[in-house]
Amino acid sequence: MFERILIANRGEIALRVIRACREMGIESVAVYSEADKDSMHVKLADHAYCVGTNRSADSYLKIDRIIATAEVAGVDAIHPGYGFLAENAQFNEQCRSSGFEFIGPSPTAMDKLGDKNTARSMAIAQNVPVVPGSDGLITDFDRAIDTAKEIGFPVLIKATAGGGGKGMRVAETEDVLKSQLEAARNEAIAAFGNGGVYLEKFIQQPRHIEVQVIADTHGNVCHLFERDCSVQRRHQKLVEEAPSPDLPQDRREAICDAAVRMIAGADYAGAGTVEFIVDKDYNFYFIEVNARIQVEHPVSEMITGVDLIQEQIRVAAGLPLSFRQEELTCTGHAIECRLNAEDPTKNFQPCPGKIESMFVPGGMGVRFDSHVKSGYVVPPYYDSMIGKLIVHRPTREQAIATMLRALKELQVEGITTTVGFHNWILQNEAFVSGTVDTKFVDRNYKGQTS
Amino acid sequence: MFERILIANRGEIALRVIRACREMGIESVAVYSEADKDSMHVKLADHAYCVGTNRSADSYLKIDRIIATAEVAGVDAIHPGYGFLAENAQFNEQCRSSGFEFIGPSPTAMDKLGDKNTARSMAIAQNVPVVPGSDGLITDFDRAIDTAKEIGFPVLIKATAGGGGKGMRVAETEDVLKSQLEAARNEAIAAFGNGGVYLEKFIQQPRHIEVQVIADTHGNVCHLFERDCSVQRRHQKLVEEAPSPDLPQDRREAICDAAVRMIAGADYAGAGTVEFIVDKDYNFYFIEVNARIQVEHPVSEMITGVDLIQEQIRVAAGLPLSFRQEELTCTGHAIECRLNAEDPTKNFQPCPGKIESMFVPGGMGVRFDSHVKSGYVVPPYYDSMIGKLIVHRPTREQAIATMLRALKELQVEGITTTVGFHNWILQNEAFVSGTVDTKFVDRNYKGQTS
Repeated sequence: MFERILIANRGEIALRVIRACREMGIESVAVYSEADKDSMHVKLADHAYCVGTNRSADSYLKIDRIIATAEVAGVDAIHPGYGFLAENAQFNEQCRSSGFEFIGPSPTAMDKLGDKNTARSMAIAQNVPVVPGSDGLITDFDRAIDTAKEIGFPVLIKATAGGGGKGMRVAETEDVLKSQLEAARNEAIAAFGNGGVYLEKFIQQPRHIEVQVIADTHGNVCHLFERDCSVQRRHQKLVEEAPSPDLPQDRREAICDAAVRMIAGADYAGAGTVEFIVDKDYNFYFIEVNARIQVEHPVSEMITGVDLIQEQIRVAAGLPLSFRQEELTCTGHAIECRLNAEDPTKNFQPCPGKIESMFVPGGMGVRFDSHVKSGYVVPPYYDSMIGKLIVHRPTREQAIATMLRALKELQVEGITTTVGFHNWILQNEAFVSGTVDTKFVDRNYKGQTS
Repeated sequence: MFERILIANRGEIALRVIRACREMGIESVAVYSEADKDSMHVKLADHAYCVGTNRSADSYLKIDRIIATAEVAGVDAIHPGYGFLAENAQFNEQCRSSGFEFIGPSPTAMDKLGDKNTARSMAIAQNVPVVPGSDGLITDFDRAIDTAKEIGFPVLIKATAGGGGKGMRVAETEDVLKSQLEAARNEAIAAFGNGGVYLEKFIQQPRHIEVQVIADTHGNVCHLFERDCSVQRRHQKLVEEAPSPDLPQDRREAICDAAVRMIAGADYAGAGTVEFIVDKDYNFYFIEVNARIQVEHPVSEMITGVDLIQEQIRVAAGLPLSFRQEELTCTGHAIECRLNAEDPTKNFQPCPGKIESMFVPGGMGVRFDSHVKSGYVVPPYYDSMIGKLIVHRPTREQAIATMLRALKELQVEGITTTVGFHNWILQNEAFVSGTVDTKFVDRNYKGQTS
């Protein structure tokens, strides 16, 4: 086993890795920017090194300085956390070529899965469903009609040069396909000077469901069931839960099996997430693989009892997973709220600043993963997450009740947080009934705080 | 179900009850002394009333004021917590006669179990083992020898008027029984002016093992397995765990069954604890019943997933328990450390004062039940507990590792706490091997902090 690990990250995930290291008897080495010099990850690590000034580009993203620190500190391995360099195959490669184990998949697996087209081909090869679409651009209207019929209406017309919704149209039926194709093409020419469009199945009421997987170097691939992350604002996850609130058992098994097939076919070792879009009839389609630990990993830890960071470290050290698939069970229901230093009533504008006073929720079924405390100054340079409030109770109804009371007792004075948003969504009828789709917040949230 | 509950307590247990109420949709009413006016239990309750000045005798123990507050606040029921009035049968009776449900057993059950002689007789009637001893005082030496042989050597000679170890002698063998009897008698006469002595079996390497039970008014009695609370200093529990580290499965079943028999025979409804002394051969002997919730209840909650305070409230409202015995399983291992504002290097002298800064441990498997935060002033008027750090992991070894890292990251600046003691005991070989007896700390602890 490793004796010393460098954590190339900050905030709560750096602390999370320090916790895992300490429980395994491994020394931890923190790196930090000047802005983070008084942070808890610096105080709680066994060793700490400053790697640069405030901006990420000058510190947490400085590959050469991080590698040099690893050499000075004499570590065996590097944990990248999430964000920053976590999915940077070049950093991954450089860690390994400098003699440090990178706690994550190989650079090759990371590269392949990082390319959306390659990942899509890999999914198809493993019989994992992908969103059906036209094979390239639409050049002929008759072929477009055949393709649309094959995919099934409604279809989505997307501009190949598109973005921000421009050049995008939905055709509900065959009758309007031609007019919508032309409208999309014209809009795309006007916006991008490129009229190329293609067809994709239009997923109604899309849900974001992802499967936590972990694989070792001995050929074992396990899933830790699914997470539902449909509570999103502009593609940013805000609340995650496990298991999904209303996925039928046969679909749960099918989506988890598909995730395992995807990873088993990718020569992959380490933790990862296979993300799917799920339609209202519970058909699921592969989106992408996140080749790293994710922010929302604690909900999967709570329902399985598995410490995912410790497993990542075991696997990177060449040990087999400490469990077999058949030993894992999904117990109870877990929900995570991401607490950001943002004002939900003002379009989630960031609110960095000093935390004057703080009370951390406790009690039955409550976990709080955070690097902040009273007196801590949230710096303006990094992402605004100040902590993750996680609950685990026997049923989803109880988990919601526990989360609401924990949100009520959480007190963070001095800065504004997203607690108000969480209070609103946790009491919203659509959330309570488990039917929120990924556009729900964008359609319905107008700054309510209860 | 109740609409509003008054909590006749303070500190973490008041907060614990508020949490349960909120999750059940019940309004909470706090009472407080002047010293506690800024406490979290006052801030987080739905309503709060001052019931007196600083001393407990002038506030939390003022039965008339608490009953009057219940009337003013219009509550349905009163939760007494632990300590203060929790086992006061007169308060219990007065709550009921004033029209408020008392969340606990009937005054009659409380009275009977509160009397040690009656409780001992009830245990014998239910075939629950008690510590064998002479039937009354020793008047005749020949009968004393017969009794000692029946009990089995070594025997303990105890003065009926005794206390503080005076008039107490161990007779290892028959040969020394007479001389030890005389020595005890003479010492008792000198110390108390009363030479009456009796015999009791001398329990070698005694362990304190207790069983959490809960009963409803529909005749259901369940146990939530056992807790081991052998880490004590002068009869004060400091660390508790569930399950017991080395109790054989057949003894576990026997002790839990005995506890259920004891409660089933006592016309008892509510939560309670049946306490036993256990010898090195795992023979167990009834000590007493605590007819209330206990400080250490969270370890039983962690291994079963049951919210004991919510069950107390259900039962008091006349509902049946929300589970059957066969649905309860003991999952993983839980440990609790009581954090006191005391200096373990100075004979645990109380250290009230202001908490200048605080970081609360988080992460996988950690629960922190506390009413304090940065800026809070620990008052000198009440017990010195400032929180309970609880961990729950799949194995005892992992639970110890998690507790040690949580203790390391807990930061309470401004006052001295017992964290140093906990660091020592959690790493002590006897604790790690699960063989600590109730005198271990008194014999071995000399103020070490690691």
